[in-house]
Amino acid sequence: MLKATIKEVAAEAEVSTATVSRVLNNSLKVSEEARRRVNAAIAKLNYEPSAIARSLKQDRTFMIGVIVPDITNPYFMEISKGIEDTVGQSGFQLMFCSSDENTDKESRLLQLLNEKRVDAVVVATAGGNGSKIAGMSRSGLPVVLIDRTLENVDGLSELDLIAEDNAAGAYMLAKRLLEDGHTAIGVVNGPSWVSTGRERYEGVLRALNEFGIEQPPLVYNGDFTVEGGVRAVRRFWQSNRKPTAIVSLNNRMTFGVLLELIRKGQHIPTDVAIASFGEVEAGQLLKNPKLYYIDQQPYDMGKRTGELLLSRMDKQNQNADPHLEIFSHQIKCIP
Amino acid sequence: MLKATIKEVAAEAEVSTATVSRVLNNSLKVSEEARRRVNAAIAKLNYEPSAIARSLKQDRTFMIGVIVPDITNPYFMEISKGIEDTVGQSGFQLMFCSSDENTDKESRLLQLLNEKRVDAVVVATAGGNGSKIAGMSRSGLPVVLIDRTLENVDGLSELDLIAEDNAAGAYMLAKRLLEDGHTAIGVVNGPSWVSTGRERYEGVLRALNEFGIEQPPLVYNGDFTVEGGVRAVRRFWQSNRKPTAIVSLNNRMTFGVLLELIRKGQHIPTDVAIASFGEVEAGQLLKNPKLYYIDQQPYDMGKRTGELLLSRMDKQNQNADPHLEIFSHQIKCIP
Repeated sequence: MLKATIKEVAAEAEVSTATVSRVLNNSLKVSEEARRRVNAAIAKLNYEPSAIARSLKQDRTFMIGVIVPDITNPYFMEISKGIEDTVGQSGFQLMFCSSDENTDKESRLLQLLNEKRVDAVVVATAGGNGSKIAGMSRSGLPVVLIDRTLENVDGLSELDLIAEDNAAGAYMLAKRLLEDGHTAIGVVNGPSWVSTGRERYEGVLRALNEFGIEQPPLVYNGDFTVEGGVRAVRRFWQSNRKPTAIVSLNNRMTFGVLLELIRKGQHIPTDVAIASFGEVEAGQLLKNPKLYYIDQQPYDMGKRTGELLLSRMDKQNQNADPHLEIFSHQIKCIP
Repeated sequence: MLKATIKEVAAEAEVSTATVSRVLNNSLKVSEEARRRVNAAIAKLNYEPSAIARSLKQDRTFMIGVIVPDITNPYFMEISKGIEDTVGQSGFQLMFCSSDENTDKESRLLQLLNEKRVDAVVVATAGGNGSKIAGMSRSGLPVVLIDRTLENVDGLSELDLIAEDNAAGAYMLAKRLLEDGHTAIGVVNGPSWVSTGRERYEGVLRALNEFGIEQPPLVYNGDFTVEGGVRAVRRFWQSNRKPTAIVSLNNRMTFGVLLELIRKGQHIPTDVAIASFGEVEAGQLLKNPKLYYIDQQPYDMGKRTGELLLSRMDKQNQNADPHLEIFSHQIKCIP
């Protein structure tokens, strides 16, 4: 069956195509009689207005672009689920892309989303695109940063950000290990070009400093992957001062740390104590690991991101001051 | 700064707007001289053609809709990553939605994707929308089913499907436990309204039948969640015949089974042996669990889905016979 056109609908209803368009866009400037005739013609001809054509008129695509480093990372997808559950009720759809922690790929994706005329952009940046992101926001496109700030502090003040209190969380974890009497602490760090990596490391250093630990800690710069945690333990065990405790600054790396320690026959926590930024559900299979972790709330972060997006897309709120929302943590323990 | 219009570009280049449009769409019917003048005008005026306006001309949106039961399930997101890595190179973007295993929500999402004029749809169906999905395919929209077939066998033959050999995989798992001498086998089943749940259960029954086990197995109908696995073990332990082995028909449920068995102080595999449809990485933290599993290949399934989509969107291949691709498994063991 050929699709009916707007011209055929207008002819059937004996009105102009402009009137049909006004009915489709719920304009108030249409008589009740004309509206009735147009709706009857639409029903009779089984006319389906193209959502694309409508979005051109309304200047809305009802699409929100979401760029995350990795769509297979449950943390980012929990955030995304929170966003979807919130904005979906208002008819918005999410368009996802993975930057693969790659600055150039992220730059191309930003360009593409701009071309697609998305109504807003959410980005957990891989870093290096600060001026591009700030520029998109300045041109009037609502942009919300999640999890990670821009490397450029100047740009930061302009943009909405929903993130975690990374420094405070990492500080609490390191402090707990120090309070338990550990002095040889290994740090499994994230990449230094991502704000979460830098901030968490700063938190650890602050705790070490407060406890008067002068020797620089054993640090392995990982990449937020399981394999990174595995490699960190191998490196620590090759060194001539093995740590008695490890603070791991993301949950994927913590899983790798646990895996490699178990393979090496190490007992947790008697041989090595563990503190993790982010819960590791697998840790529940260990017997009394006394594993410290801070509980992240990605789904709630996503809900707040969704609410913020809806507010920003309302033109009245576009020029409001940047919204900064930092989720704090509590320290927990798998006993 | 006001955005330049196509009219201003045409005036600057001293050509018609139709010529500008032809240059934008890479039409061959433009002289080199005109193309040069148009590109110079675009650069001078900083003109950005709207991707939406272009897609109306090309009859392409370069968007592919993907509906999965849950975007936080790494299995589906690995498939999605494979799709993204394949179609992204050709300029297609993915629009994701979660059906939350809900037939009505899936139906609304299908309608919405249709309205957005996506170029193709990928769906891991929650069930119950067989005729709607088949109808969209019949109307000319490329549709690829992943992981799950339609409940309606008539519709199946029309549609492309990339899935796993669920019955054979589950058969292998149950057979391995039977070969090890177990006769009291608990089955943690998926939901019966999803094809993967039904097919896997059939595979288990076939193995039991071959080994002459006449007593019906202990079955718990779970919902593919961790909590479902936890509840299954509780139910089995309340019954008057505890299983000596459990076959769990998805990896999330297997994690729940392990968790609850550990909490109950059961040793794996001496108290209870485990076989899992899908790898459970947490199992690696157990000491010699002799945990059988079949290895899924979601990323490769996604790559093949992406290749199939690109082929189907080429109009020449739209009427080719439905493509059916079933991934088979090998049984593996965490020793």
